[in-house]
Amino acid sequence: MMEGNSDEEDNILKILIATDIHLGYAEKDPVRGNDSLVAFEEILENARKHDVDFVLLGGDLYHENKPSRRVMHGSLALLRKYCLGDKPVSFEFVSDQSKNFEHCQFSSLNYEDPNMNIAIPVFSIHGNHDDPTGQGNLCSLDMLHSAGFINYFGKTTSLDKIQISPLLFKKGSTKLALYGLGSIRDERLHRIFTHKNVSMLRPKEDSDKWFNLFVIHQNRSKHGPTNHIPEQFLDDFIDLVFWGHEHECRIEPEWNGIQEFYVTQPGSSIATSLSEGEQAPKKCGLLQIRGKDFKIKPIKLETVRQFYMEDIVLQETSLDPLDHDIGKKMEAYCQEKVEMLLEKAKAEHSGNRKQPDLPLIRLRVDYSGGFETFSQHRFGQKFVDRVANPKDMLYFMKKKVMTVKKKE
Amino acid sequence: MMEGNSDEEDNILKILIATDIHLGYAEKDPVRGNDSLVAFEEILENARKHDVDFVLLGGDLYHENKPSRRVMHGSLALLRKYCLGDKPVSFEFVSDQSKNFEHCQFSSLNYEDPNMNIAIPVFSIHGNHDDPTGQGNLCSLDMLHSAGFINYFGKTTSLDKIQISPLLFKKGSTKLALYGLGSIRDERLHRIFTHKNVSMLRPKEDSDKWFNLFVIHQNRSKHGPTNHIPEQFLDDFIDLVFWGHEHECRIEPEWNGIQEFYVTQPGSSIATSLSEGEQAPKKCGLLQIRGKDFKIKPIKLETVRQFYMEDIVLQETSLDPLDHDIGKKMEAYCQEKVEMLLEKAKAEHSGNRKQPDLPLIRLRVDYSGGFETFSQHRFGQKFVDRVANPKDMLYFMKKKVMTVKKKE
Ligand SMILES: [Mn+2]
Ligand SMILES: [Mn+2]
Ligand SMILES: [Mn+2]
Ligand SMILES: [Mn+2]
Repeated sequence: MMEGNSDEEDNILKILIATDIHLGYAEKDPVRGNDSLVAFEEILENARKHDVDFVLLGGDLYHENKPSRRVMHGSLALLRKYCLGDKPVSFEFVSDQSKNFEHCQFSSLNYEDPNMNIAIPVFSIHGNHDDPTGQGNLCSLDMLHSAGFINYFGKTTSLDKIQISPLLFKKGSTKLALYGLGSIRDERLHRIFTHKNVSMLRPKEDSDKWFNLFVIHQNRSKHGPTNHIPEQFLDDFIDLVFWGHEHECRIEPEWNGIQEFYVTQPGSSIATSLSEGEQAPKKCGLLQIRGKDFKIKPIKLETVRQFYMEDIVLQETSLDPLDHDIGKKMEAYCQEKVEMLLEKAKAEHSGNRKQPDLPLIRLRVDYSGGFETFSQHRFGQKFVDRVANPKDMLYFMKKKVMTVKKKE
Repeated sequence: MMEGNSDEEDNILKILIATDIHLGYAEKDPVRGNDSLVAFEEILENARKHDVDFVLLGGDLYHENKPSRRVMHGSLALLRKYCLGDKPVSFEFVSDQSKNFEHCQFSSLNYEDPNMNIAIPVFSIHGNHDDPTGQGNLCSLDMLHSAGFINYFGKTTSLDKIQISPLLFKKGSTKLALYGLGSIRDERLHRIFTHKNVSMLRPKEDSDKWFNLFVIHQNRSKHGPTNHIPEQFLDDFIDLVFWGHEHECRIEPEWNGIQEFYVTQPGSSIATSLSEGEQAPKKCGLLQIRGKDFKIKPIKLETVRQFYMEDIVLQETSLDPLDHDIGKKMEAYCQEKVEMLLEKAKAEHSGNRKQPDLPLIRLRVDYSGGFETFSQHRFGQKFVDRVANPKDMLYFMKKKVMTVKKKE
């Protein structure tokens, strides 16, 4: 990894990385309806603020395959507001655009269109939420691409043989080969990999001088024998894997000693489930590449709705299931926990005026040992106007059988 | 009206007018699915070819309120292809943009955005097919507007009082005040008019020097007491009314002697019903305005699918309803008619390679006088691969009770 800062700015590719923005998530919720667009705006603001060369997104930009008009409109407006402008592009693109974007109607880079003034190019692969379907095999990213607001890559056409041509960038002495693979059903991709039918093309000249970055949107953690992609499936000439789809923020690069590459998993910018993984603070990252070195500066998102979760095991408390008033006492106990979490949320509020005041709260209550559940609805009523999700704050379960972490 | 051609090009505003393009009409029909996009492309090509100052659309650009992804994508791609470019805009816009586009997130003209290189600005009101609805009261035109591809005007916010601020254009000595009113339910607008709650603002300076053009998308012909807008409702300071919504091409200006204004009704560029009105050749127009004079050059669209219709009154033929073979003879008679129409279509094909070979054919068969109908399905089978609509070529009716012309 790259050590310290360099004053050789001209040789450093600066890339803002973010993924799983899920525009439109919970859009009909009167409280949370705008959260995803707010986070997207903060990500784009960061791209401007850090003066990056480009933005790289790892899929699931949209939550719905067919986003609502409001969400489509909101995202177009944000891209127009933040990505257009006078800043000149200070890197070279040296691969064949017509090959890299052969699946698109406009098979060229948006910032090279003399009729569009692009300050910050955005590159994106698709995720499983916004994958191509239907007539024309189009996805929402195709619309953004044809409108000139993003550069959509990593769309595969063949279903049993995949050949990935990298996008090649040069900035000063730094050379980046960017490989992208839009989401494919895990089982299918697993099979294609085991049949050795995934090939990654490498630049012929100086092939060991290129920094090789691979963006992928698949299950990373094992859910079953074939519905994930093991890291060892990936080519070991890769230097860094940008893993989308997994919502837990693990943006700090993790070293895979067998494959000898790093993996960064930025995680989603919105919690689409109230699970443990989504509790980690949401971040995007500033990826800087110089030669074969890189570093990632995590950037905490300040406008994302806070989410706090706590586990309660009733039989480990002083509560007695035989107490004649046990229902009320349990409720009071949980209520106190929520109050503590609300205090914590207040203390930890980022101060950004766009960060909502109402946090997401989830108590996982293990009621094994003779306890009974109580009314989720009545409990939530006490926190209307104080939490964002009064209707599903509680999750009752027994005998510590934890649910499998939900993946998006 | 303007006489002859003028060499004072610098004083002539050239506007391409078209309406009711109904993008996405019959998009799932394997034969006709692309017709609307083909016509739109021809209209945009004409705008380029005639080097117009701008394009003016009269509503119903989209057939569905929520267009499919393919249609949205196709229209964005066409607008990007034809409207962007280096041609400088050679007129001035002198009204307050923030007022004219107050309903839009980007309340300014697209061609004034320094980040977009617009060669041909497009201005449009909405129709009843693509009117604003739902969360945010948005329509498809809002997306095109926020993406920077059109200038969407004529959206009203109040429902019982309408004030229309004109878009003011100057080119040399010519001054154009363009008034627009997006589609409103006829009964409602009728009431607003009778309550004298529609007011059209006029420029204070030289108010009689402006050419006043009003674009409207409502029923023009009477369907009932209040579900249309009589021409006499419109202000008589208007010079020309551009009437959208009515699909029959009556683009040649018609003089209203009471109101003392002209009305042009360009009609749709696609037949959305097999009715008499849709049979007239489809056209767009080149509107030229110089001072208080104007002329319209109709431009026949060469790529629009041909449509031929014929009425048959069986009792006026030599066919005898008591003939034991009458069914077969009727069919043979109709078949011959279709063959004649197919011959006519062949002879009248525009020669443009994009004009489809299969025409739309409709026979209206009056079978009163003791005749029976025969199988539409069996009849159509004979013309599969020769007509575009084998399933609904025949329309049986009795006693000359004609259906009311369908309006879109
Ligand atoms: Mn995903
Ligand atoms: Mn996701
Ligand atoms: Mn209409
Ligand atoms: Mn129409």
